[in-house]
Amino acid sequence: MATRIIRAGVIGATGYTGAELLRLLSGHPHVKLHALTSRTDAGIRVADVFPWLRGRTELRYVPPDADQIRECDVVFFSTPNGTAMEQAPPLIRDGVRVVDLSADFRLRDPREWEQWYGIGHAAPELLEEAAYGLPEMFRDRIRGARLVANPGCYPTAIILGFLPLLKSGLVRPTGLIADAKSGVSGAGRKAELGILYSEVGESFKAYGVPGHRHLPEIRQTLATVAPDPVEITFVPHLVPMVRGIHATLYAELLSDADVQQAFERAYADEPFVDVLPPGAHPETRGVRGTNVCRIAVHRPSGTRVVVLSVIDNLVKGAAGQAIQNMNLMFDLSETAGLDAIAVAP
Amino acid sequence: MATRIIRAGVIGATGYTGAELLRLLSGHPHVKLHALTSRTDAGIRVADVFPWLRGRTELRYVPPDADQIRECDVVFFSTPNGTAMEQAPPLIRDGVRVVDLSADFRLRDPREWEQWYGIGHAAPELLEEAAYGLPEMFRDRIRGARLVANPGCYPTAIILGFLPLLKSGLVRPTGLIADAKSGVSGAGRKAELGILYSEVGESFKAYGVPGHRHLPEIRQTLATVAPDPVEITFVPHLVPMVRGIHATLYAELLSDADVQQAFERAYADEPFVDVLPPGAHPETRGVRGTNVCRIAVHRPSGTRVVVLSVIDNLVKGAAGQAIQNMNLMFDLSETAGLDAIAVAP
Amino acid sequence: MATRIIRAGVIGATGYTGAELLRLLSGHPHVKLHALTSRTDAGIRVADVFPWLRGRTELRYVPPDADQIRECDVVFFSTPNGTAMEQAPPLIRDGVRVVDLSADFRLRDPREWEQWYGIGHAAPELLEEAAYGLPEMFRDRIRGARLVANPGCYPTAIILGFLPLLKSGLVRPTGLIADAKSGVSGAGRKAELGILYSEVGESFKAYGVPGHRHLPEIRQTLATVAPDPVEITFVPHLVPMVRGIHATLYAELLSDADVQQAFERAYADEPFVDVLPPGAHPETRGVRGTNVCRIAVHRPSGTRVVVLSVIDNLVKGAAGQAIQNMNLMFDLSETAGLDAIAVAP
Amino acid sequence: MATRIIRAGVIGATGYTGAELLRLLSGHPHVKLHALTSRTDAGIRVADVFPWLRGRTELRYVPPDADQIRECDVVFFSTPNGTAMEQAPPLIRDGVRVVDLSADFRLRDPREWEQWYGIGHAAPELLEEAAYGLPEMFRDRIRGARLVANPGCYPTAIILGFLPLLKSGLVRPTGLIADAKSGVSGAGRKAELGILYSEVGESFKAYGVPGHRHLPEIRQTLATVAPDPVEITFVPHLVPMVRGIHATLYAELLSDADVQQAFERAYADEPFVDVLPPGAHPETRGVRGTNVCRIAVHRPSGTRVVVLSVIDNLVKGAAGQAIQNMNLMFDLSETAGLDAIAVAP
Repeated sequence: MATRIIRAGVIGATGYTGAELLRLLSGHPHVKLHALTSRTDAGIRVADVFPWLRGRTELRYVPPDADQIRECDVVFFSTPNGTAMEQAPPLIRDGVRVVDLSADFRLRDPREWEQWYGIGHAAPELLEEAAYGLPEMFRDRIRGARLVANPGCYPTAIILGFLPLLKSGLVRPTGLIADAKSGVSGAGRKAELGILYSEVGESFKAYGVPGHRHLPEIRQTLATVAPDPVEITFVPHLVPMVRGIHATLYAELLSDADVQQAFERAYADEPFVDVLPPGAHPETRGVRGTNVCRIAVHRPSGTRVVVLSVIDNLVKGAAGQAIQNMNLMFDLSETAGLDAIAVAP
Repeated sequence: MATRIIRAGVIGATGYTGAELLRLLSGHPHVKLHALTSRTDAGIRVADVFPWLRGRTELRYVPPDADQIRECDVVFFSTPNGTAMEQAPPLIRDGVRVVDLSADFRLRDPREWEQWYGIGHAAPELLEEAAYGLPEMFRDRIRGARLVANPGCYPTAIILGFLPLLKSGLVRPTGLIADAKSGVSGAGRKAELGILYSEVGESFKAYGVPGHRHLPEIRQTLATVAPDPVEITFVPHLVPMVRGIHATLYAELLSDADVQQAFERAYADEPFVDVLPPGAHPETRGVRGTNVCRIAVHRPSGTRVVVLSVIDNLVKGAAGQAIQNMNLMFDLSETAGLDAIAVAP
Repeated sequence: MATRIIRAGVIGATGYTGAELLRLLSGHPHVKLHALTSRTDAGIRVADVFPWLRGRTELRYVPPDADQIRECDVVFFSTPNGTAMEQAPPLIRDGVRVVDLSADFRLRDPREWEQWYGIGHAAPELLEEAAYGLPEMFRDRIRGARLVANPGCYPTAIILGFLPLLKSGLVRPTGLIADAKSGVSGAGRKAELGILYSEVGESFKAYGVPGHRHLPEIRQTLATVAPDPVEITFVPHLVPMVRGIHATLYAELLSDADVQQAFERAYADEPFVDVLPPGAHPETRGVRGTNVCRIAVHRPSGTRVVVLSVIDNLVKGAAGQAIQNMNLMFDLSETAGLDAIAVAP
Repeated sequence: MATRIIRAGVIGATGYTGAELLRLLSGHPHVKLHALTSRTDAGIRVADVFPWLRGRTELRYVPPDADQIRECDVVFFSTPNGTAMEQAPPLIRDGVRVVDLSADFRLRDPREWEQWYGIGHAAPELLEEAAYGLPEMFRDRIRGARLVANPGCYPTAIILGFLPLLKSGLVRPTGLIADAKSGVSGAGRKAELGILYSEVGESFKAYGVPGHRHLPEIRQTLATVAPDPVEITFVPHLVPMVRGIHATLYAELLSDADVQQAFERAYADEPFVDVLPPGAHPETRGVRGTNVCRIAVHRPSGTRVVVLSVIDNLVKGAAGQAIQNMNLMFDLSETAGLDAIAVAP
């Protein structure tokens, strides 16, 4: 177990996942925040942007090309899609390890990336090397990785909910349905009409039903454990709350297996997946601020299995999982800095 | 078109559906509120319980057995389950027409009722006669009915969303999924821990996955239009908002039909069903306070069809639909008293 | 009482007060919407921007300089500050009557306007003529006015709460405190970080304590009824809800008067001010969607008087009051189109 | 600095302050949870009641009279008013130190207690001895205390906001106004209509204006630092959010002092009071889950001073402050177990 202090940098530390990285890294026993970048806020103290960090850090934002970034042991990208694929490669060549919280290195196929994100990929040679940062599936690859592609928030909740069923061949891999609901912070910290309080407060809606960018990532990852091609319908919804994802997953059982046991076995040794007893219904507030994915599995009737999977989109769905990956990469305790209890109610 | 004034009574006018009946009936051009009952609040002015009715009615609650009830032309029951089946029969015999907003007369089979509601049915002889109050399906039966069983809130949103698909045989009647989300007012106005602000605020969860009382009602109604037995999985969720239901419905197409057209045709003449153009996503706030069901239909990929159906649970899901039924029963314009525009944002 | 149909236009009908004008004007018995303008959305159907207007209007936005505007009997400006003072004067000269919902004509002194709004006033010659559109104070002036300056949302709630006390000389006109709380829709429909759901949800804060633009308007209006100079501290706060203003007002009684009676008398004949009985606490939800200002008055101890005053910021605080003013200007019933009951809960 | 492990008990650990005590004590480096009592839930695992404690404690509730309570070094009472005054005295005699989070020992005068709480005091002999648990005022008394009366949530925010002004004689001690706003969790976890989601969601109101039980506690405490009798008007409001208190405080300056400096000096050495720079507006979310009181001070005009003071009502307003007091009583670092960063947004 390493005891030296890891110097960490955060590129694009002005959004919600960036702020959450700062919160979690500030409390991490083996990390020292070394550099935070912001194109627009260079020179400004981070605690002036996020007052809840007052007294915790005196750091000021530096420009994205500042020397301090290259001095880091690990750099987190919490940037808009398209940035990390430009800026990460030189850092990696310099020996800095990178965890990318954007979508840049999640898809293996550069053409699929281009299709969903609308621009050509700038570093296709790294796509094969990048480890998909879901420790429950790829822990060993992550340990040795120079570059980790941190999963999207929806994919994390959905993949962890389907994984035990598909891996053990209990369900038909076609006809899967992921009806997912997210708090508004999942849409990021940007000035857009559609995520104003007055637009989403006291209301509920689906969005992106014709196609959402997280779909190919879910499909690609589930395909690695399914015997046959995976076919999945994914419908995201916007919930009038700040944090939390609740995925309600539907599949058809192929045999009369004990699904509860399948989940309990699959996650028996996982520090951040909590399988509830039969009949339970997890709440998003119960994981608020934590890196936990809490899951319940139901068999309401016939061959139908229903899985309820909740995470905090900013933690297990972003910054917390990124730190879990960093812990693995640097041979730290996997739970270091991630042991807070949910702030509920 | 009738122009005389209908005397209306409301039994159990202290809950949210009761209050919504009062709001809508107070503004109805052909109705006069004649009697409101409450066991606990007899003698109290209704405007003291619901201050937003100040200046609109001077009525005071009377006990449930007061004479004024029998003087009504129509009586609405917004009582807990088990009350209307006791109190409605004598009123009906006296010639009072009844719209029951509880579940008492929704299921045809008294044994199924007993199984889901835990007590024997007190008036099984009326189950066959009661019209199921969904005008889009049973308009003619409702017109002549002495007793209307007003549908549940979830069933209204879900049935209207599946109806065009099942009726025209476009989808497989098995493997249906209704992933439904409701505002908290759907749980009623009663002192219970689980619906406190501090329990459901800033959180999201499913509930009743093993079985919810609205399931048999949905199954029974959809069965009347499907060629084969209907098999449906229904998962309700609680949204941190007061009003609104959003049902996300999944089915498998049997052929490559134009589902958009199927919906537009099915509801072309319906005053309260609004089919959105292709690609749209309805919001619950857009129907707040109105009797409208707004629907969008999507075909994300393959044979999958996804229907998004929203209503205000207290209006089209309860009080508004009850008044729509009353309008039909008394040969009034079907939209009388129900033409408000949504209060949004 | 006029029965002809008034042709109404709305300049800048893409914000929340604009949308609320459309909702209320669409249901007004004596009004026909004739023209809506939008610089950015010209050609687009208004029901595509605000889907809850589907089926109610087929109107499309026209550019701000379209001929249809001049054909109107009345034009409402729901534009950013600085627009009406440019565009209203030629309309007024053409005989169109104008209700301006922005701040352009609220202050009498052009220098004070310049000081708070940062630009010189383009039509200072109209400032004296403009009637301040608070019917409870200036009903007669409004009736004959060519130009009405519709009050701000905070000023409406605050002035109506202080008025009976100042007018009758019951309180010291200095040391007044207005601690006001507003839903987020008061900040308008514009893409700004500070009013994102994720910024204001599950949180509460004051803003603008050093000085808020509504302060001079409050001071100027209260000064017209106070014997001595009025001195008032105004602190606005942001509440995690969409609609509603709650003003909590503090003053010091000069004598031991019956303040309850003072309020009841002052507003006995007012159709839109509802004085609650002693001991009550009004809720913002109780006026949601309505033009009502509901007030309670308390004397907790000593010489202190506390007034609680609630309105819907988009209705009595903006669009509803504008229509109340239009009703007066065109000799219609003052309550025409404004008789809805609050949608609560 | 003590390093031994403190055995802690919680009486009445089924409410929100109880749950928050469990969250914070579970993460405290020098504490071991030894016993939790519940009259109604004895035998049940606490993690079954509050699922976010799953994996953190295997404790089950014991009855209030269980032996384990007497084995504790410290016992926290998070019980309804009237319980601690019965059950604490024998524990204190046995050498257990007590922190009472209810109101039982907050008022010095047993007659005043009786007047506000409606029953005679069962342990008046302890009222003089009990230390009022506001460390910023009574740190030394708390250190040696056998019994600490933990302050109410409103009093904590309000007293800390007025303290520097009164202590230094900068403001007139009469005419003070505390306009305070609280999230709904402040009302506790009990089945009551008034705090249902559907009653308080999307709405705002004042309550208890004629008199609130926290008023005498505020008055008594401020009186200890003011030269003259303190006269204060206190108006609490209910905000549609779960956690957080925002107190907006008004006073009149006696001279032209530098109030910013007065606050900065007063709290320079306080670990849990954070004075913001001039012009700032603290948000409740910025202290969510933390023991911090964040304060800003403004001078909008004339002699008026406005103080904005925010806390998390369940932490600095209850459980966190109780642990801060325990830390002092057991000579631990005052911040032990209380160093989390706010979970925001």
